Amino acid sequence: MTYYEQHQPDFLEGLKTFLRIPSISTLSEHKLDIIRAAEFARDELAAAGMTAAELIEGPGNPLVYAEWLGAPGKPTVLFYGHYDVQPPDPLDEWHSPPFEPTVRGSDLFARGAADDKGQVYIQIKAVEGLLKTTGKLPVNVKFLLEGEEETGGEHIEEYVKSRPPRLKADAAVVCDTEMFAPELPTICVGLRGIVYGELSVEGANHDLHSGIYGGAAPNPIQAIAEILCALKDRNGHILIPGFYDRVVPPSAKEREAWGRLPFNEKEYTENEMGARELVGEPEIPLFERTWARPTLEVHGIRGGFTGQGAKTVIPARATAKISTRLVADQRPEEAAEQLRAAIQAACPKGVTAEFKVLHSGAPSLTNPDDPFIHASAEAMRQVFGKETVYIRSGGSIPIVGVFDRYLGIPSVMMGFGLPDDNLHAPNEKFHLPNFYRGIQAMARYLELLGA
Amino acid sequence: MTYYEQHQPDFLEGLKTFLRIPSISTLSEHKLDIIRAAEFARDELAAAGMTAAELIEGPGNPLVYAEWLGAPGKPTVLFYGHYDVQPPDPLDEWHSPPFEPTVRGSDLFARGAADDKGQVYIQIKAVEGLLKTTGKLPVNVKFLLEGEEETGGEHIEEYVKSRPPRLKADAAVVCDTEMFAPELPTICVGLRGIVYGELSVEGANHDLHSGIYGGAAPNPIQAIAEILCALKDRNGHILIPGFYDRVVPPSAKEREAWGRLPFNEKEYTENEMGARELVGEPEIPLFERTWARPTLEVHGIRGGFTGQGAKTVIPARATAKISTRLVADQRPEEAAEQLRAAIQAACPKGVTAEFKVLHSGAPSLTNPDDPFIHASAEAMRQVFGKETVYIRSGGSIPIVGVFDRYLGIPSVMMGFGLPDDNLHAPNEKFHLPNFYRGIQAMARYLELLGA
Repeated sequence: MTYYEQHQPDFLEGLKTFLRIPSISTLSEHKLDIIRAAEFARDELAAAGMTAAELIEGPGNPLVYAEWLGAPGKPTVLFYGHYDVQPPDPLDEWHSPPFEPTVRGSDLFARGAADDKGQVYIQIKAVEGLLKTTGKLPVNVKFLLEGEEETGGEHIEEYVKSRPPRLKADAAVVCDTEMFAPELPTICVGLRGIVYGELSVEGANHDLHSGIYGGAAPNPIQAIAEILCALKDRNGHILIPGFYDRVVPPSAKEREAWGRLPFNEKEYTENEMGARELVGEPEIPLFERTWARPTLEVHGIRGGFTGQGAKTVIPARATAKISTRLVADQRPEEAAEQLRAAIQAACPKGVTAEFKVLHSGAPSLTNPDDPFIHASAEAMRQVFGKETVYIRSGGSIPIVGVFDRYLGIPSVMMGFGLPDDNLHAPNEKFHLPNFYRGIQAMARYLELLGA
Repeated sequence: MTYYEQHQPDFLEGLKTFLRIPSISTLSEHKLDIIRAAEFARDELAAAGMTAAELIEGPGNPLVYAEWLGAPGKPTVLFYGHYDVQPPDPLDEWHSPPFEPTVRGSDLFARGAADDKGQVYIQIKAVEGLLKTTGKLPVNVKFLLEGEEETGGEHIEEYVKSRPPRLKADAAVVCDTEMFAPELPTICVGLRGIVYGELSVEGANHDLHSGIYGGAAPNPIQAIAEILCALKDRNGHILIPGFYDRVVPPSAKEREAWGRLPFNEKEYTENEMGARELVGEPEIPLFERTWARPTLEVHGIRGGFTGQGAKTVIPARATAKISTRLVADQRPEEAAEQLRAAIQAACPKGVTAEFKVLHSGAPSLTNPDDPFIHASAEAMRQVFGKETVYIRSGGSIPIVGVFDRYLGIPSVMMGFGLPDDNLHAPNEKFHLPNFYRGIQAMARYLELLGA
């Protein structure tokens, strides 16, 4: 029995402790939990045998750093993950409390289980196993964990931009993506970028009676509806002028590989998404729609009277959270400007509209022929016993673009989540067999890189 | 000094006591306040010298009834008003607490001050003055006050539909409208009807990550936006098929009279509404837009993440409160069906939409040549010292249609509110000179009817 097999109960208990900390970065009242989660990760790294484990304080939530540099002449990899999590609401849809990790069947349910504490814990336990059993690592390893991934905070970006010598590495290993299907080892080579902001619309300076003023008064909710419909048509085409100009379509080879991925559309639609049918640009295949096309979504909206019963007001204001996902080679600053201009152009008479960007990140595409990518594919093939597939993700991991731009290193996206893990939604989970095999695959990856 | 002049301080104190009761009919937690307000009105009527004062219990909030029938051979008028009020939110926009009546200048600020407790109190104090000073009333008078006007409850309608003998009357006097301008006595001869309901849209059965599923998942907020835009165009034209078919345009004489009303559009837009500019059907004059054209408004909307910061979800559901105002000869049942059908026709792929009617009421148009209307105009002319003008209101007082249909009587709408009284909004107020003169005008009206 290997160290990794023997210590599975310890790994599970440790992860549960990590998950009990409600380190929600988007809610300022959880600031102390953020610190607790960062300290937990630092202490786990030190206990695993990593050196120089510490918090890096800065303008936002602390970074966690640790290193092991005892393999001169060998490559250096930089492990990245995040210890912050999404808010858990709507709370009443959880079957067990979001911060009381609960095992049901082969899954561990908790906010952050897959995104991203479970995957950060894979990285920590992989080096722990090697250090405890061999006293060393096959390559040099650095950790840089952040606590603002879900809120788009800029601490890590500012830090990486300053190019500190201790971040020097040959490749980053980012564990924040998912496997395409259960048992199917997967490397993600493309990510969408994002521009996320808040749209505020104001009409009259106070709520008005819809009987007295209906027919004369501007309605900010109706205005938001008109703006949303002007930004995207009923078929999912974004109507913002110039928005598709820089979009690079996937290669014929990539499209062909995507066509061979095991996929059951009915299962995906009905069971995974819980939807009636798929929507979006009808002429574009599904994987291309979610991986290689920009999209625009409204995440939340609020305005007027929403209590029980009826109130006949024309509200003075309304707000909506809106984002657009970007693909290579779109640029976040340019996309934000295009979006802002389109909102102004669509703003109806009688109201003012203001769009404030809350965070943004560039899209990324990694070269699949990179040797660090190949070793990762091989390590996962050995542990999972199947050929590794190359996919993209529709999500956004802004740090990948930052590592590329400021450290000049590729990011290897080894992900162990599953498509039905309910990321950002109630009942987030992590599939425990993936957790345990992920730890082994990560250790094997380091061995292959050092060989 | 008349009784009415002498007792102004008592009238004010009594009204303040009435206004301190937060009798919000749309919020079930205020049920006890509803009872308190009904009992207060009943006790005031009894103290004024009315007989048979009592609560009429039924399926909703109690009605308040009282009568004085000591004028055989004289007409009988039925006073109507409501003791319930709108919710006060948004609370932070009030300059003094909504249920602590506060006099500033010549105005009394409180929720319900003008709509409708102040006007109900005018009716009570008018009969009190006549009874206390002459021991009788010039005509027979009945009171029927309700506590569900703001919530569209059906208790009063059910009661009137049953045609109880004690409601027999020659005309109703409805005090729930406003004067066209300060000092300008006004009779309202037309009201809009309403269909008010809640639109619920559902997409997937749980919130989804907008990165992973954006481009494939239905978005209920976007769906509501698309439905709203399909119901009304950017120029305020309702796009519901058949919706304008029964609309009766105002007569040339009425249009001409409206054109002569004193009106300052800049003052109305900027000071009264607090808006930048007027919107609505550009080819229709303002008074016709707000009094004689159907309109469609969204009163509130809620969906997805609306907290601080950012959350990248595609929400599972969203809801909106929507109403349409109706004009003669539109029928609420038919309009509700047309609206429902239009919502279904506009509902995008991937979501379901359900529209549930919360309340409705018919529009009404009264014959301005009715003798009860003429006496009212004359009474107000004498007290205010100016010719009474005839207008319509864009608001809805469903009971007017009910009195017409089931009791066969016209409604005289003598209103003493002002256009800037902030009905249904923060800082609702009642202009105290109107309050005191309203009491005198109402007493004078009874005298003219009895002469």
